[in-house]
Amino acid sequence: MIKDKNVPDIIISRLPVYLRALQHMQAKGQVTTSSQELSEILSISAAQIRKDISQFGEFGKQGTGYNISFLIEKLREILNLKKVWDVAIVGMGDMGHALARYQGFKDRGFRVAMVFDNDPQKIGQRVGEFEILDAAKMVETIRQAGIVIAMLCVPASAAQEVTNQLIEAGVRAVLNYAPISLNVPEGARVQYIDPAIGLQRMAYYLE
Amino acid sequence: MIKDKNVPDIIISRLPVYLRALQHMQAKGQVTTSSQELSEILSISAAQIRKDISQFGEFGKQGTGYNISFLIEKLREILNLKKVWDVAIVGMGDMGHALARYQGFKDRGFRVAMVFDNDPQKIGQRVGEFEILDAAKMVETIRQAGIVIAMLCVPASAAQEVTNQLIEAGVRAVLNYAPISLNVPEGARVQYIDPAIGLQRMAYYLE
Repeated sequence: MIKDKNVPDIIISRLPVYLRALQHMQAKGQVTTSSQELSEILSISAAQIRKDISQFGEFGKQGTGYNISFLIEKLREILNLKKVWDVAIVGMGDMGHALARYQGFKDRGFRVAMVFDNDPQKIGQRVGEFEILDAAKMVETIRQAGIVIAMLCVPASAAQEVTNQLIEAGVRAVLNYAPISLNVPEGARVQYIDPAIGLQRMAYYLE
Repeated sequence: MIKDKNVPDIIISRLPVYLRALQHMQAKGQVTTSSQELSEILSISAAQIRKDISQFGEFGKQGTGYNISFLIEKLREILNLKKVWDVAIVGMGDMGHALARYQGFKDRGFRVAMVFDNDPQKIGQRVGEFEILDAAKMVETIRQAGIVIAMLCVPASAAQEVTNQLIEAGVRAVLNYAPISLNVPEGARVQYIDPAIGLQRMAYYLE
């Protein structure tokens, strides 16, 4: 397998989408697939899919297509998902609660390991299997646990300050639910989850 | 203002991000900005920002940059956000609840108008200002209300079937929280909110 850090991020962004589709096929008992079939499911051209995947090696065969289990394993390897990553959630409002109880991380490489809030009313309360920890101790707690991924569910007004603390704690990947752009230093990354952005993008096409 | 339906979707996808940044600047009392300043906030090149915006007209001036209020109004016009769109939520689990109470749609062009579930235990219950409506009456209720945007928070196993019903009801934009790819007919669109996809994309860069 070729793992070249110069692969464009736009290609990397599609690999999890391929992985999700392949895992659905596998769950249904399917053994092989083709770039054509993936194309129909994902509305991405078959040529693009073949090109993306071939960046990392020769995983398909002309005529027979892709072995699903094999390609899943390769994609998990490429995306560093052969281990399960611990994730911290900061901000236990409605969205933090929903994420703490979300079943969709299962088998996809992540598990929620700890949750934080700064509200004295919430600290010590339980959410599912988690006790809400004091955000004042977040930096040392996350650093000691070696956690490098966080989901940020605090209000927009607090998001940059909390992000700075997460970076100080060693976090290098932030999934940001606050509707604000964050600055992080080189070596760290942010992905945004903002439903209004998704809706606005679609509204362009409505009339 | 030029409104050309042939503008690539990748450009359309960035306009809401510009709009969000501009609205933050406006809320802080700022009057003008530049592609350079936006570039630093958004980690998108200044040339790309200028090129994207110039697709729709000449909204900035060499040397003085962009008037923030003016550019916000133009972007809202381009994205069809001069009106407030009613949105239906289907599936009132944790995520549906969180979205029904989400404050982030305010001033961004959308308001939750109705919420549905098919669980007899939930139908008739209240979530904030909403009464949970019976999903069995969803098609006619949505059609009568003229709603064309929905947020889908049902389990993956039900997502395609519910989507088909939404399309039948006249919905043309689905924000999908179920971790599965959906098929919609021409003229309809899906945007995906899947936190595991965002985390997986970042995991590629972790070691």
